Amino acid sequence: MEDIKKRILDKIKPSDEEREYLTKVANELMYKIDSITFKVGLMGVKTQLVGSAARGTWISGTHDLDIFIMFPDDTSREDLESYGLSVGRQIAKEAQEWDEHYAEHPYVKMKYGGFDVDLVPCYSVSSAECILSAVDRTPFHNEFIKANLSGREDDVLLLKQFMKGTGVYGSELKTEGFSGYLTELLVINYGSFEKVLEAASEWRPGLLLDLIEHGAQKFEDPLVVIDPTDPRRNVAAALSLDKFCTFIDASRSFLEDSDESMFFASQEPPLSDAELLDRMDLRGTSLVAIVFKTPDVVDDIFYPQFAKMEHSIVPLLEKNEFTVLKAGKWSGEDSVVFLELISKTLPDVKRHRGPPVWVRAHAEAFRSKYVDNPDAYSLTIRDGFYVAEIPRKYIDAVELLESEVAGCSLGKHISKSVKEGFTVLEGEQILDLKDEGLRSFLNGWL
Amino acid sequence: MEDIKKRILDKIKPSDEEREYLTKVANELMYKIDSITFKVGLMGVKTQLVGSAARGTWISGTHDLDIFIMFPDDTSREDLESYGLSVGRQIAKEAQEWDEHYAEHPYVKMKYGGFDVDLVPCYSVSSAECILSAVDRTPFHNEFIKANLSGREDDVLLLKQFMKGTGVYGSELKTEGFSGYLTELLVINYGSFEKVLEAASEWRPGLLLDLIEHGAQKFEDPLVVIDPTDPRRNVAAALSLDKFCTFIDASRSFLEDSDESMFFASQEPPLSDAELLDRMDLRGTSLVAIVFKTPDVVDDIFYPQFAKMEHSIVPLLEKNEFTVLKAGKWSGEDSVVFLELISKTLPDVKRHRGPPVWVRAHAEAFRSKYVDNPDAYSLTIRDGFYVAEIPRKYIDAVELLESEVAGCSLGKHISKSVKEGFTVLEGEQILDLKDEGLRSFLNGWL
Repeated sequence: MEDIKKRILDKIKPSDEEREYLTKVANELMYKIDSITFKVGLMGVKTQLVGSAARGTWISGTHDLDIFIMFPDDTSREDLESYGLSVGRQIAKEAQEWDEHYAEHPYVKMKYGGFDVDLVPCYSVSSAECILSAVDRTPFHNEFIKANLSGREDDVLLLKQFMKGTGVYGSELKTEGFSGYLTELLVINYGSFEKVLEAASEWRPGLLLDLIEHGAQKFEDPLVVIDPTDPRRNVAAALSLDKFCTFIDASRSFLEDSDESMFFASQEPPLSDAELLDRMDLRGTSLVAIVFKTPDVVDDIFYPQFAKMEHSIVPLLEKNEFTVLKAGKWSGEDSVVFLELISKTLPDVKRHRGPPVWVRAHAEAFRSKYVDNPDAYSLTIRDGFYVAEIPRKYIDAVELLESEVAGCSLGKHISKSVKEGFTVLEGEQILDLKDEGLRSFLNGWL
Repeated sequence: MEDIKKRILDKIKPSDEEREYLTKVANELMYKIDSITFKVGLMGVKTQLVGSAARGTWISGTHDLDIFIMFPDDTSREDLESYGLSVGRQIAKEAQEWDEHYAEHPYVKMKYGGFDVDLVPCYSVSSAECILSAVDRTPFHNEFIKANLSGREDDVLLLKQFMKGTGVYGSELKTEGFSGYLTELLVINYGSFEKVLEAASEWRPGLLLDLIEHGAQKFEDPLVVIDPTDPRRNVAAALSLDKFCTFIDASRSFLEDSDESMFFASQEPPLSDAELLDRMDLRGTSLVAIVFKTPDVVDDIFYPQFAKMEHSIVPLLEKNEFTVLKAGKWSGEDSVVFLELISKTLPDVKRHRGPPVWVRAHAEAFRSKYVDNPDAYSLTIRDGFYVAEIPRKYIDAVELLESEVAGCSLGKHISKSVKEGFTVLEGEQILDLKDEGLRSFLNGWL
């Protein structure tokens, strides 16, 4: 175990030179910001490096610098936004490239000295409980971690890398995994990388970690880690049940049989046409794909809609009595929802159970609807209920999807894209999807 | 309505000549029995005509005479049986044909003067609550009906014929419908044929009729009619929920639109090969038939086993994930269980859901069984549970049935017959079943 940890750290821990260079670039940027704010006469504005770069928990080769421009809390929102942007734009003049982003406030992102730099304006408040916007909390996180983690930065590096390798790192809505801040808190809480894994092996949903015992609210999430800087916030709110469980599973596996490769996710090789056909043939199921153009929105907007799409389409199929073995999603230039069905076709006849015979009003209405109906196959009584055999609306899942997907609850941007056009492919037609990333996804999923 | 009733009664009510002839034959038989018992010196033995023939509620053309030979209640069981049989055998010398049957006591059945005569020995007891064998109750039924029905015999005739026509008459285990005694009690309770139908239109399961308000026990049957001669007996115990509901349904239909044809069941014409193929084609389902030699036992032994067979086979299919749309049974020289499936084949891959990841001992056992299993397609985590994709044991319902039907819980006689040999037919192979009765059954069922 110690050997493995050493070998991993050799790969992921920034060298002294890397560290020094980062500090140099960060200081240079902060100095420039301070000069600009001084020049325009902005009083009480401070700059601070936050995030993993500030805490010594960044993985070698990642080049992110988060610099916060902290305005006094009596600054108007308009002033904060316009001055924040204006500072950012002046710095950006010396950047390799840059653009403006809009979160709660607008901010400037740029390439500078080989780093991805975010220049984020925020309010400087007296405690995390008085924050005026979500980003105002970050400087307090920085403070807490620096005060409590010291000496265990390597454990955080190992935990982050292990989570990356097992696919559970990242709290963005595409991943629904663990945030960097959360890994730091876990190391502080349990003491070390191994102790986090040992604890996780025994985790159950509903677990509450409250490092300074000040939690002031109930949460329903699988894991609840009360933010030490804010008693009303669950740091693990973005973590899905399945990523929580995947981490439990990975922790047990690694402790049982320490396998270095778990730290590094390996992409499956893309399936060739012949391999994909073989795979479909072996399984014997019906594979169906809904393909549409990926809307031009950020991941945090797109992925919740993509999940919503899956959660609308599976019930649509099930309501029409198609049995869905599993559903999967992939997104590149096009986005694809895959559905694996027991069978894409169903017989024409369908059992339609009516009311119990003894509930007279309903029973008579049902009976009169089906008793002499030329479309109905039969009307019988089974277990006290009327049962009509009627023709099915859709005997082919492809036809069902072509007719009804656009009417599903899909989320704004996906709905727009789908209405502009989508195709439903099945079986061999899926070979038309040539994207290597998609073929690689299918290798893991199918 | 009055017209219809008159026309039906014209067909089913015995003429004066038929009545006189029945009385003559019954009296002749009873006189002979009395002579024999007198001759052998049996003291206190009485004979009595019971059943519908005695109550004026027999339908013209049915030729059943039930004559009870009633022994004093201090007679030993051996004496009752030996004298009962001996009397029966002597009478039988003058019968066209005869044989011996074994119910609670042995008794003689014969053809005599064109009638099917049962000569049943029983005990003469002081009240129905002191009966020594099940048949001892019958003379009390006779007494109660004669005392309470008088003048409404035609209503019983109409009700019996209506129940015959709608398939709910007969309390034997093949039919699970209404007994003759039950129809008489219903007419006594509600007052007339129409009033029974009007009441039945509003029936709900759990209905209790207790004509003399002496019920002494709770019953769970759909219809509970406390026997006026025995507070612990439900006269409708044999009535199934579906026959109960079929009668409700038929009553409403007839009252809404009095259709004389409802009094006479019409057999569906047998399906030709072409029609049967068309029918299967139109429905688009997979039809499977399990065929075995009907065991040589009476209906009341056979039919409960046949029902048990269906109730074993449907879950066997469902456990193996075949979707059964409906099951049907037909019995002649061979017996056949028909199963209509959404599809007789399934894909090789099957979802096998394991324990939640956080239930450690079970989770680890499941994981280690499937994680590196070359037969398993995959092991994933979904909604907190491990899910393994594994090959299906049976991908063809015919194969499943051929392998496992003989091991099902089938009842003694059917099990023996099935073990001696059975075949499973599917689709076009079912055309091999040529029996006209079976083809007629299929016309109604499929």
